[in-house]
Amino acid sequence: MAVRDLALVGTGLIGASVGLAARAAGVRRVLGWDLDPRARETALESGAVHGSCERLEEALAGAELAVVAVPVAVLAEQVSRTLQASAETCTVTDVGSIKGLVCERVIDRERFIGGHPIAGSEARGAEHASAELFRGATWFLTPVAETRPERYRRVMGFVSAIGAVPVAVEPRAHDRLVALISHLPHALANLLLNHAGAILVDGHEPLNVAGGSLRDMTRVAGANARIWVDIFMENAEELQAALGEHRRRVEELESALAQRDAGYLARWIGEAAAKRRTLLETAYPDAGALFRLEVHVPDRPGVFAGITQALAIEGINIEDLEVHHVSPERGGTLGILVTGEESAQQASDLLEAQGYSVITGPAFPEG
Amino acid sequence: MAVRDLALVGTGLIGASVGLAARAAGVRRVLGWDLDPRARETALESGAVHGSCERLEEALAGAELAVVAVPVAVLAEQVSRTLQASAETCTVTDVGSIKGLVCERVIDRERFIGGHPIAGSEARGAEHASAELFRGATWFLTPVAETRPERYRRVMGFVSAIGAVPVAVEPRAHDRLVALISHLPHALANLLLNHAGAILVDGHEPLNVAGGSLRDMTRVAGANARIWVDIFMENAEELQAALGEHRRRVEELESALAQRDAGYLARWIGEAAAKRRTLLETAYPDAGALFRLEVHVPDRPGVFAGITQALAIEGINIEDLEVHHVSPERGGTLGILVTGEESAQQASDLLEAQGYSVITGPAFPEG
Repeated sequence: MAVRDLALVGTGLIGASVGLAARAAGVRRVLGWDLDPRARETALESGAVHGSCERLEEALAGAELAVVAVPVAVLAEQVSRTLQASAETCTVTDVGSIKGLVCERVIDRERFIGGHPIAGSEARGAEHASAELFRGATWFLTPVAETRPERYRRVMGFVSAIGAVPVAVEPRAHDRLVALISHLPHALANLLLNHAGAILVDGHEPLNVAGGSLRDMTRVAGANARIWVDIFMENAEELQAALGEHRRRVEELESALAQRDAGYLARWIGEAAAKRRTLLETAYPDAGALFRLEVHVPDRPGVFAGITQALAIEGINIEDLEVHHVSPERGGTLGILVTGEESAQQASDLLEAQGYSVITGPAFPEG
Repeated sequence: MAVRDLALVGTGLIGASVGLAARAAGVRRVLGWDLDPRARETALESGAVHGSCERLEEALAGAELAVVAVPVAVLAEQVSRTLQASAETCTVTDVGSIKGLVCERVIDRERFIGGHPIAGSEARGAEHASAELFRGATWFLTPVAETRPERYRRVMGFVSAIGAVPVAVEPRAHDRLVALISHLPHALANLLLNHAGAILVDGHEPLNVAGGSLRDMTRVAGANARIWVDIFMENAEELQAALGEHRRRVEELESALAQRDAGYLARWIGEAAAKRRTLLETAYPDAGALFRLEVHVPDRPGVFAGITQALAIEGINIEDLEVHHVSPERGGTLGILVTGEESAQQASDLLEAQGYSVITGPAFPEG
């Protein structure tokens, strides 16, 4: 069942990464095609493909699986061409961010199975490709009624072999799901930043005095307009529905505030705390055992090394790490997650012995 | 002008941290009072105060500056008591998250100057106090018409001496500002998480398949209900105004989506990209020169140390660092920001030589 001959239709960042991961997973032959001669060349140079073809048919000849990795705007058309140019034995899948339209309009519902890896990178182009891009990532697959089990197993097996976690979902449900978990968060990040940055308050530019929460909330704001305009356009209906429900929830909060309903607010925050734990459970099986160390660090080479090395020597595993960079003159704060109060205490003692000031506490305190 | 005798009214996390920072900055005598005998004891044991007093008057005797650091719900009352129990020579300030009400109702507008450090910590209690908590943080001060310049200079000088950046703003404007930069982001994080976690889509729990953007956006969700209910209640009016404007912006986006207005979406994303750069300018004076490395790392002790040490040896400064933890079995992705393409290339080569797979690109790509 394993794929031996793979065709990549489009060898940009995602296509070339699929190629590298496939080769690492032992796929015998990977051939690539791209409209852009430079992308073809880069894919060949980086080892993402065994061969780069000028004609689509060449790349597809003998392939058991073809992965279409082209921009959303030309996806449906390219999937049709790939189906037309490939043999009956070739199963075709794609990596597009939206699945409803492409799955409904596809000319061969038996041979095509939609796909979508949740593996964003701000980098673009085959030169940034990586065999590791999909490791541990959710990879949606959208089989339909006509999908043949053996074809589905082939795509699912391939996705697993390159390190991703296949998740089957109906195409329109996929679009509803990504509207919620990806497109709505992106939209809110943009909305929040444009809102907070639009006005002066008493002569103050809000963005100049903002703390960490606004920075966290807007990390994905302003991302790659060329990609995101197409995503928002193609998933407009589902995103509108999500925004409408969001607005309804905002109104509910406004009315609780107008009534000074402290009980509502407490329940609402408590609900978010419980959901935050659910969200973290996939990443941290025992989130309640996590402790957080906040360490003030100067801005110079070697500081992270000194700290992480000291913990490594004692066998303390860093579960998560983040920096709130303040400024070159003042340094920043290093947040370190470790498991267990004992490890936290040990880590804190070690770092304080190195002269750092450390604040320690449960990472996800109750209530 | 420097403060020699300081009184802390409330010695929880913030009060005790002010005490530690004040002592580090050379304040001669710090006396503390707290309603809770345990907080008094902890503050004394941790060295945050020279003495812990059972009666408020004792702590205030001889103080040139009193810092009121009590929960928002009892703040106005405690400020009044502090003004009544202290001498004319004593200037009183506070650290409450909302300033309008307390500044308007205060019984002595000459001696009281409102304050608010933007230095959140999820940890609570004097045992987590740190002299470094305020380093580089914005510390709002809210002088009014009656404020005497010499009193203002005293508070401002003290705030600077303990490492914070004083920013003067009118009390109601302060509340509008924090509604935008702190309370609205917190509210949206809760709204988003409660929304995404409320439904099953085609049998799938959205939170189980969520990627990094939802995790980033909801990092502050569900935070400390005991503190945040009071903050939302006290700043209800300004937060309602911010939520109303947010709703207006959501509707505008919905209507652009309904009209499939790609031009609007491109301008809207472009605006967010520009504002994101503004937001980062305070942290990174030359954000355009920043490059990002994405490194896939296993989940075991010593990995961070190996990586950060390799960079430190070559003199490559890590500007920022974050981990997207995937799972114990699969490890996660380490994001590293460095300045300059040359450093990025050098860092990437170093890490690839160590056997890591690295994706490199501009941290904040244009467009």
